[in-house]
Amino acid sequence: MPSYRAPVEDTLFLLNDVLGFQNHANLAGFSEASPDVVEAVLGEGGKLADTVFAPVNRAGDLEGCTRNPDGSVTTPKGFKAAYDAYAQGGWMGLSVPEAYGGQGLPHTLNTAMQEFVSGANLALGMYPGLTQGAIAALLVHGTEEQKQTYIPNMVAGTWTGTMNLTEPHCGTDLGLLKTKAVPNGDGSYSLTGTKIFISAGEHDLSENIVHLVIARIEGAPAGTKGISLFVVPKFLVNQDGSLGERNGVACGSLEHKMGIHGNATCVMNYDGAKGWLVGEANRGLNAMFVMMNEARLAVGVQGLGQSEVAYQNAVAYAKDRVQGRALTGAKVPEKAADPIIVHPDVRRTLMGIRAFNEAARALVLWTALQSDIVHRSEDAKQRQAADDHMGLMTPVVKGVLTDRGFANAVEAQQMFGGHGYVEEWGMSQFVRDARIAMIYEGANGIQAMDLIGRKLPRDGGRAMMTFLGEVQTFIKDNNETEALKPFCTPLQAALNDLQGATMWFMQNAMAKPDNAGAGATDYMHLLGLVAMGYMWAKIAKAAAAKPGDARMEAKLVTGRFFMERMLPETSLRFARIKAGSDTTMALAAEAF
Amino acid sequence: MPSYRAPVEDTLFLLNDVLGFQNHANLAGFSEASPDVVEAVLGEGGKLADTVFAPVNRAGDLEGCTRNPDGSVTTPKGFKAAYDAYAQGGWMGLSVPEAYGGQGLPHTLNTAMQEFVSGANLALGMYPGLTQGAIAALLVHGTEEQKQTYIPNMVAGTWTGTMNLTEPHCGTDLGLLKTKAVPNGDGSYSLTGTKIFISAGEHDLSENIVHLVIARIEGAPAGTKGISLFVVPKFLVNQDGSLGERNGVACGSLEHKMGIHGNATCVMNYDGAKGWLVGEANRGLNAMFVMMNEARLAVGVQGLGQSEVAYQNAVAYAKDRVQGRALTGAKVPEKAADPIIVHPDVRRTLMGIRAFNEAARALVLWTALQSDIVHRSEDAKQRQAADDHMGLMTPVVKGVLTDRGFANAVEAQQMFGGHGYVEEWGMSQFVRDARIAMIYEGANGIQAMDLIGRKLPRDGGRAMMTFLGEVQTFIKDNNETEALKPFCTPLQAALNDLQGATMWFMQNAMAKPDNAGAGATDYMHLLGLVAMGYMWAKIAKAAAAKPGDARMEAKLVTGRFFMERMLPETSLRFARIKAGSDTTMALAAEAF
Repeated sequence: MPSYRAPVEDTLFLLNDVLGFQNHANLAGFSEASPDVVEAVLGEGGKLADTVFAPVNRAGDLEGCTRNPDGSVTTPKGFKAAYDAYAQGGWMGLSVPEAYGGQGLPHTLNTAMQEFVSGANLALGMYPGLTQGAIAALLVHGTEEQKQTYIPNMVAGTWTGTMNLTEPHCGTDLGLLKTKAVPNGDGSYSLTGTKIFISAGEHDLSENIVHLVIARIEGAPAGTKGISLFVVPKFLVNQDGSLGERNGVACGSLEHKMGIHGNATCVMNYDGAKGWLVGEANRGLNAMFVMMNEARLAVGVQGLGQSEVAYQNAVAYAKDRVQGRALTGAKVPEKAADPIIVHPDVRRTLMGIRAFNEAARALVLWTALQSDIVHRSEDAKQRQAADDHMGLMTPVVKGVLTDRGFANAVEAQQMFGGHGYVEEWGMSQFVRDARIAMIYEGANGIQAMDLIGRKLPRDGGRAMMTFLGEVQTFIKDNNETEALKPFCTPLQAALNDLQGATMWFMQNAMAKPDNAGAGATDYMHLLGLVAMGYMWAKIAKAAAAKPGDARMEAKLVTGRFFMERMLPETSLRFARIKAGSDTTMALAAEAF
Repeated sequence: MPSYRAPVEDTLFLLNDVLGFQNHANLAGFSEASPDVVEAVLGEGGKLADTVFAPVNRAGDLEGCTRNPDGSVTTPKGFKAAYDAYAQGGWMGLSVPEAYGGQGLPHTLNTAMQEFVSGANLALGMYPGLTQGAIAALLVHGTEEQKQTYIPNMVAGTWTGTMNLTEPHCGTDLGLLKTKAVPNGDGSYSLTGTKIFISAGEHDLSENIVHLVIARIEGAPAGTKGISLFVVPKFLVNQDGSLGERNGVACGSLEHKMGIHGNATCVMNYDGAKGWLVGEANRGLNAMFVMMNEARLAVGVQGLGQSEVAYQNAVAYAKDRVQGRALTGAKVPEKAADPIIVHPDVRRTLMGIRAFNEAARALVLWTALQSDIVHRSEDAKQRQAADDHMGLMTPVVKGVLTDRGFANAVEAQQMFGGHGYVEEWGMSQFVRDARIAMIYEGANGIQAMDLIGRKLPRDGGRAMMTFLGEVQTFIKDNNETEALKPFCTPLQAALNDLQGATMWFMQNAMAKPDNAGAGATDYMHLLGLVAMGYMWAKIAKAAAAKPGDARMEAKLVTGRFFMERMLPETSLRFARIKAGSDTTMALAAEAF
């Protein structure tokens, strides 16, 4: 039976000692988040994840969701009670403004909690995750009436939210969408169409479900410029806020998926369903993009969460399972064999996952902190810098953390030998669950294109220049410190690769955009490696300041492992980018 | 509904134009394998895979195997008919000597057929695959009576075979095994113990099942030196060859696995089961090793098979699915969007899988050809060289082809977006099925240790020196040819990395074996990359000799993609190896 323990201590270390979380007391909600409050919040959150979410994870996988003949959907046993504990604990509104029933604490803390929840039970964590996404969209684009109608109920957890984008013939290319919205004349619209892959589209966890739906208003322009966003509640809401009649939206079927069985992935049929415009007509994609940065960050966090839980279980197995002897002689001669953690190839695997997890967690929290600055700072320049960072790092966090998170789950499963392949041990579930994060919320290839085609060139490359400058400054300031040389030297080499690749695109991709497309994924991973290398350098600096602390010494070793064995991948990525698109694009489609 | 088409044409090209299959007419069975016979055999084999095995693949995943209350096991609908078609087509004994009912054709052809079968239906293909493994072991180590009793029935397919190694507490470390064999005094033994993960351990495809079981004879030495191999039929065989009473071996339960649902993975209980020694007492592991080279080669082929079928389906989807427009302007303006194969990131993925598949297939067939030489050549020197090659390349074929085969299935699945995660499309099954090949028949970390600890140093490194010399000679002979320069130049760089890494181990691993262990997996992949790069260089030479042939031109492009984008990974692997084991091994186990 797999287990999970939320990395509360490590998160606190990163916030307090590496990222300077406490230096932001000027931001709304941060002064309330004093060190003891943060410790208490994360401690409680971790406990909920460990003792309430994790124990029903395996059952959720086995049992899955069931669509009943009346179209209702039953979630796995135990999900409702766990969801209620989350809602009643006030977690849904942790960072939602108090005006709508939330606690107004930093989104950074909510992001940390998202990791705990995703690691403990990804399928269950998606229900509140989507609700928080819907809250975020309504907060920015909803009318005051819409906010008052929907958000407090969602914060209380009595209502949940969804995002309805994909249709059978369009996922990435939303310009092709067909769902129609016809004005009813009373300010409302009548929506008709089919949406697929709608996570949490129908279930029994909440009394009402608030669907955010993109559709084309009759007569609107074709393509992405004719897309509008609507709010479509499952049950209409009466003037007094009570639930009225059932709306014309229903779950037509559930998808049978590789993983996240506990989350209901629905085909949703809209049959003249009543909806209300959110934001401006034909500006629906812009409205969605607002919530996308945070949703994509949250999906990156899911990759990290699965990597962490897979790592923890692989470590436990590697300490317990005895098989063979250490190459340097028996370590536990009194047993028939040594625990497999003595074997260098097992160590290599565990160290690699661990070195990723710690850096990825730092990158996530750093980026979440920027999100807080974007939304809460009163300093326009600070907001702009934070927004630049968000734009640049969001596709990296989403794409790299889910690619590597999945790969790490696979490597952790490998530690178990044949037992890893047997469902009973739970490692297969981590792999199958982690797989979705590479796909939804924009498949990772799309993240790479977003990075190279949109985020990188924006404002003359300002965001990237700032990032390159920041890392370079760190190296200059620290490469004379003996303890930090093993970090600064490889980081400089990796930074040179990133600079070289960025320059290469400037010189070769303007006139030949296929060169950008063919190198996009490698560039996303290259940036991710440098960003994680930079996180390790910062962690090392904080750890080196606490000599004699065994946990900190372990961090220095783990960080050096990253610098020696993982960061050098930048030069391979750079080499691939420089290969350009010629051989990639040379074959006619028929030759495949 | 996924589909499969066996790569017959490509296999024929590799045999005839690249590997000089027809130059081996001096070997037994090869003169019968004239070009037209080979074409007919592979054509028929491909047809069986495409039209009989592939159509029941998805049903096998959905339905799985069922253990009935009486301990019997029912395979998925359609499996028995497909298995019968295979058996009746004479495929089981394709390369088994005619003296035992086989056709005596080269094992190389059987290996090609194994790819077709594994690509079409991995779970089903395992039943004959294990039977062929059992035949191979009996051919080498069985008494003439054992051979006559078991082999012709297995060749006919009326009986099948298994390998029983793993026990609950031991997989890799077989020295720990507990299954006991007590002499009955009449030459037979009484076996008692529990074996787990026994593929095809019980099923309804054949009348009898011939279990090859390792066990410890009462009083035998502890560890691996006290292990013996036994043949234990499910039904005892009467003097006249007819089936007698049921033996004391039964399937206790089936494992619930991530994939290969159509194959029955059994817990087998031996309760005083009657068995007969195969080969010498206490030399059972040596007997198993004989069949391991071929079994590991076959598992590597499974990785390739899954990579190929996943590729084929991803190509079909990429040509069909329209989404977005080419970066260089609409390619199919009359449609609402372009097929996604126009996008460079999609191309990059497809080209990467394709470039792997073609080189991996060449490496497999080349190695299979060496296996034929080992078993059939009358020239001791030629046999030795072939045996050296087999020893060196077997862990590479097993480890690298299954690691990459799985990764490729994941990448192919990614092409489908959300549809790839939904079971209905079949891509998830390829991923789940491919996953096992990294684990069974010696987990890939074990392959790496086998390579570095056993195969590399054997006979003073003779096998590696020969391989390095062969590749170097090829480069010297061809690097002045204009068409081959784009192959020879990068191959030389990769070869230098391999030489450097080999030297590094010689200098740093003797005194410090952890340095070998920490670099083993990277070295296995480094050798695999160089071997595949060499295969591409040879393919390019053959292709360049046929100017104007579109298929050959596509090979030259695909090969250059490999050389430019995939082969440079050698330098990353070399860098990791040189990092040594210090940070890998530094942490105390408690620090994890």
